Order: sequence, then structure tokens, then C-alpha cells
Amino acid sequence: MIKLNENFLNVKQNYLFTEIAKRTEDYKNAHPDADVIKLGIGDVTLPLAPDVIKLMHEAVDEVANKKTFKGYGPEVGYNFLREKIVEWDYKKHGLDFDASEIFISDGIAADIGNFSNLLSENNSVGIANPVYPEYLDVSIMEGRNNIVYIPFSDKNNFVPDLPKEKVDLIYLCLPNNPTGTVLKKNELKKWIDYAIENKSLILFDAAYERFIEEDNVPHSIYEIEGARKVAVEFKSFSKTAGFTGIRCGYTVVPKEVVAYKEDGEAVNLNNLWNRRQCTKFNGASYISQKGAEAIYTEEGQKQIDENINYYKRNCKLLKEGLEQAGFKVYGGVNSPYVWFKIPEKYTSWEFFDLLLDKANVVTTPGSGFGEEGEGFIRLSSFGNYEDTVRAIERIKKLEY
Amino acid sequence: MIKLNENFLNVKQNYLFTEIAKRTEDYKNAHPDADVIKLGIGDVTLPLAPDVIKLMHEAVDEVANKKTFKGYGPEVGYNFLREKIVEWDYKKHGLDFDASEIFISDGIAADIGNFSNLLSENNSVGIANPVYPEYLDVSIMEGRNNIVYIPFSDKNNFVPDLPKEKVDLIYLCLPNNPTGTVLKKNELKKWIDYAIENKSLILFDAAYERFIEEDNVPHSIYEIEGARKVAVEFKSFSKTAGFTGIRCGYTVVPKEVVAYKEDGEAVNLNNLWNRRQCTKFNGASYISQKGAEAIYTEEGQKQIDENINYYKRNCKLLKEGLEQAGFKVYGGVNSPYVWFKIPEKYTSWEFFDLLLDKANVVTTPGSGFGEEGEGFIRLSSFGNYEDTVRAIERIKKLEY
Repeated sequence: MIKLNENFLNVKQNYLFTEIAKRTEDYKNAHPDADVIKLGIGDVTLPLAPDVIKLMHEAVDEVANKKTFKGYGPEVGYNFLREKIVEWDYKKHGLDFDASEIFISDGIAADIGNFSNLLSENNSVGIANPVYPEYLDVSIMEGRNNIVYIPFSDKNNFVPDLPKEKVDLIYLCLPNNPTGTVLKKNELKKWIDYAIENKSLILFDAAYERFIEEDNVPHSIYEIEGARKVAVEFKSFSKTAGFTGIRCGYTVVPKEVVAYKEDGEAVNLNNLWNRRQCTKFNGASYISQKGAEAIYTEEGQKQIDENINYYKRNCKLLKEGLEQAGFKVYGGVNSPYVWFKIPEKYTSWEFFDLLLDKANVVTTPGSGFGEEGEGFIRLSSFGNYEDTVRAIERIKKLEY
Repeated sequence: MIKLNENFLNVKQNYLFTEIAKRTEDYKNAHPDADVIKLGIGDVTLPLAPDVIKLMHEAVDEVANKKTFKGYGPEVGYNFLREKIVEWDYKKHGLDFDASEIFISDGIAADIGNFSNLLSENNSVGIANPVYPEYLDVSIMEGRNNIVYIPFSDKNNFVPDLPKEKVDLIYLCLPNNPTGTVLKKNELKKWIDYAIENKSLILFDAAYERFIEEDNVPHSIYEIEGARKVAVEFKSFSKTAGFTGIRCGYTVVPKEVVAYKEDGEAVNLNNLWNRRQCTKFNGASYISQKGAEAIYTEEGQKQIDENINYYKRNCKLLKEGLEQAGFKVYGGVNSPYVWFKIPEKYTSWEFFDLLLDKANVVTTPGSGFGEEGEGFIRLSSFGNYEDTVRAIERIKKLEY
């Protein structure tokens, strides 16, 4: 008899975005003339950079011709891309990596989802709260029931305390989604020191790294001394270069990073991730990898920054507008997300409804990202500038 | 302390293709003037069909324009593609599916690798032998140590007997890689009946389906009555349409197919696979999905069949040439692979060396696909026609 992995039955359906879509749809049906503006979703809206488009067209032409056709590529990614990442994303920040430490994939949702399969189910897990829901869902699917939440809240000014208990596996997302907050170098260093001391492993999701603008905020966890022994970093072209529909990202697994056998022997994870990817993955699309390569020139960097700056302008507008309206606002500086505190008499969902009803603005209720998100609302800067201007004007006039 | 999933340490490094590459390289270094022809690898070499190229260019243009830009798509694939698959790959063969039973992915190496994560590690596994190595490696990674081999050999004329013991999870690859052999409908029906009787689950890899030409060989496992309850089917655009570098495939998870809880309750796998994909995957590239859509027109079908027929011509040439040379040959009809028996005094690797040395032809030794492959050699039809002609002429003249 084929037996189920019953851990899957413990995963809750995540209704957050379905519920937002449903309430929006219901509102529109009841108010067909309403001019509803969506600032809820965390997906890019600007077209891809011209150089990315150019290289993707060239790649399509290559596979149209027998002489330049590309079949299976390396499962872990083409060296042309791995080497550019080493040079532009790390060497320029003073960090040395070998191309064999960079694993290209079709996106980090997959990598974050699959990486912990290298690890025993008998690991305790530390998960930021509120945060992107994947880390928790994956932990439950893998049968890890000993979960410790790491609060990112206004009570600790979004600088979380180290867990009192020993936590084996720690998920951090910085800049954090949804709070838009960051940790400075000295604040992140405490986590590295903790991980070294406790032989923990940090899975570090740096999807929003390109939005960092303040000094002293690390662009990579490897800027912190000792991190190579205890951290795996996930970086995506999705938010950096608008690749959410194109699918390309990468995971850095340093040669030094290890997990331990029951007998205490340290085992190198770079080899094991390589083996996993070569078995269960056949490489990212050649066209996507060529497109990603295009961002690694001076001109390519300039082009992607134009899009990033467009979103940043939206973000500044949202942050300043909310502050003028009297809200306490977090994020919005090193991040595409603005996170604001709502009056205590409302729940996140109640205030979501109020914003939809009175301002016709769709947002994301903070409680959808975890208990510590209750009492907050997330706004996304990925919309249209003109819509963002109109939305914030309406919120400023809101009576509540 | 972060603890390892020690199952990963039990996976053997698969040196097959690395070893082939090394021996080929060594030979070329020692004989720089040798005209070496490669008939080893199972990767396509012809360019993509013109309509696929056209739609992929159009897709690149779409993401270059704000009005037509595509961000995140549905994790399980766009409906435009799911519906075409329902219509062209199933309805035309008399099989009804709903689009929600079709899950688009970046390729079935990932799907085959990930699907069994829905299942308990306490399942016994039946694996064809010889076969594509992923099924065994994945089983070991998932901690399934009770493995029963299903011999596909000349002793049973490549029609395997049902296992005597009860096997919970069964991997079948048909047309089989590497033997190139198939099961007829009545032969496959025995496996479905076995699975129904024992409440087993069959994971059916149909990557080479497009090469089937004989009547009475099923194009889909669902042509067999009862299969929807006990089988999941994996189909790829890789060999069908040359997508090995573009990455697109799909998995069919019928609403009826189940696995069981410890208490015997049946649980629907369609929901769970949907949940898994929506958590750990963010959809296949939009460009790849648009490219795949192009094959679902009369003209698109004609175009991909031109490539398939080119490979089939190679295959026929290899099969007939080997038979003329006195070898007993299997496969080569409903498959891109030819599998031939070598003289008993040689091992597969010894005959590989002899072919490389005396005929300058690179092949794949059968023992690399499992013990039951010992004494055989695989030839691939994915090469150039002219090279294939020259290779077979050399093999015909071979003295051994």
C-alpha cells in the first residue's frame, strides 16, 4: 500500500492572496464604477531591461540554428553566468568566491524549498515572524515541528533578539518581506556568532538586496566574518531585474559550510547540493541564463537600476505620504515594501477592508505573514507611479 | 547543531557520463588525428521548430513592453498551455482530463525528483533495471532502502514479470531508456491490475512517447483502464520538441489518484502536488511555456515530427546495420535508442573501449544503467545523419 508523507497534511492552506483577490473581486462586483488601485502584490510591473531583451532574442536565434543549438546545459548553471556573478555581485564587494560555489536555478522559491531536504528532519527551526510564508510551509512539509519564532516587531524596533534556546536551522529574509526592515552589519553579526557558537545553519534570503541604499547594511551575509561556515545565501533576478516570469536565481553554497552527522562529523554541503541538483534538476532555461548575463555590464547595471529607482520613488512617496497622514511607518528605504502600524482598534483585515472600501486601495494585511504582523499593513511599491500618487492622496484623506 | 539528512551520503556518485567523457578525451589526446563520432549521449541536436522559435521571440517582445509584460505566472502553469495539452495529447487519444490535472514545470527531472516527497519514506520501491539512474538516486535520497529491481532483459524478452513481493511505489519508463523497448497494452495492463490489487502507485515516465510508432503500444498509461487511480504520468517537451535547453515538461496527476494514511484513509494526490508546487516552485518560464504552446497546431505537430523522423531514420540505420553485422538488437523502433547484445567474452566497458579504439565510435555501456544492462551497449539516434552512416559502416567492419 502506497503510504503518504503525512507531514503534508499539516500544512495550512495559505489563503492570504486568494482571500485578498476574493474580497477585491466582491468589492468590485458590488461597486462596478469604483476605481480600485492595487498596491498589494509583490510582483514587478516594469518591462525587462533592453539589454536583457536583446540577449534573450539572441539566445532564441541560437537555438533556431543547428550550429549554435544548445541542448542540456550544466545542471548547476552555465559558467558564463556563474563567473559574472562571482565578479559583479561578490568581487566588487570585496568577496572572493569560486564559480563552483554559485548554483544557478530557475528561481529561489525552488532553492529555498529544496535546500532543507539536505538536512535531517530532527532540526529545530527558527523563523522570522512576520515573514514570507514559504519557510514555515517547507519546514512543516519536511516534518520539522520544533519551530521557534523570531519576532520582527515594533516592540524590538525590528531588531530581533537571539533565541534563548538552541536553534539548528535559521531562516532570515533581509531586507525582510513584509516589514521592509533590515539589520545593520553589527546586528547581523550577532546571528553569525550565534550560529558559529551553536553550530547552526542560516538560510539567508536576499531577494531584495538590490533595494539596499544605506551604508552599513550588508548586501551579502558573507560581508560578516565567519558567515561562510554557517550560511547559505539565496539571490534572485526576480526583483533585481524583473525576472519573476523569466525564472532565474542563484544559491551560494560556500565550500566551508557544513552540516553534521549524528556522530558529529562535519559534511560539506556544497558537494551534496551539487549532487542534489545534478539528480533532481536539469538546469535553468538557456534563454533565462543569457538574459541574466546581460545585467552584468556597466550598461546592464544602469538599465536595471532605472527600474529599481522607479520603484524606490514609489516607495518614498508611500512612506512620506503615510507619515504625513500620521501613521508610524517602517521599511520603505532599503526595500520595495512599506509597513505601517494601524490604529489599535482595528485588526489588519479590518483595516484592509476599510482601505478597500473608503480609499479603493488594495493592500496586504500584515497578519497574513504571521502573528507578529497583526496590527500592520504592507504596501508594495511595484505599481504604477501615477496610481501610487493617487492611492496615497486617498489614504491621506482617509477618516478612521 | 545542524544535522544532516544522512540518506544523501548513501547515494553513489554516478560516474557513467563523466567516465565516458574521460575515456573519450584520453583517447583523443593519444590519437589527435582520430575522427571520433559520438553516439553516446541522449541529448537532441536539431534546432527547435520554426513555430516554437516564432512564439518565443514574440514572448520576449511581450516582456519588453509594459502593456504586455508578464510577471509571476500560475505556479502550476498557464491555462493556455494546460488546455492545449488536454486537447492535443489526451482528447485526441480519447482521454478526458481537466486542465487542473496537468501541472506544467521546468522539466520532468524536477517533477520525478520531487514527486515522491509526497510519499512516506516507508514505501518499498520497484525500479526497472537497467534504467535511467534518477529513480534509484531519488529513492535513496528519500531514505527508501527497500528496493526491488524489475529486470528488463533478454531473458524475459524485455517484458518483466510482476514482483513476487508487494511493492508500494513503482517506477516505469516506457519506451524504456536505455533498452528502447516498450510494453504493449495487454502487458502494461498487468502492472495496472497489480497496482490496483496492491494499492501501489506507478510513476510513469513517458519522456520518449513521441517515438512510438507501433499500434498497440500505449501513448499514455491512462489508455489502460483503472490507471487513473494508481498512476502519475510525466511527459516532457525535451525529446518531443527539442526542449532540453529550454526546460518545459508536465506531470499528470488525475483527481482519482491517491496515497494512504497510516490509518488507511485515502488522500488525493492532486491537491497535495498542487500545494507542493505552489509552495516550492514559481512556475516555468513564460517564454518556455509560449514555445511549448507552438507545437499544438497542425503545423506545429508537422514541424516537430520532422525532427522526430530525422532521428528515427538514424535509428533505423543503426538497427539494420547492427543486425547486418550479426548483433542481436533491441529497441530502435518506438524509441530513439538502440540496445544491442555484445559477445559474452566482453563486459560492456570492454566493448565500449573496443568500439572507441577500433571504430572511433563513442557509445554508452549498458552496465552504467544497472546490473541487468551488463553485456549490452546503447546507441543514440540523436546525432547527425552523416555521422551515423559513417559510424555504422565502421561498426560493420569491426573485428572482435
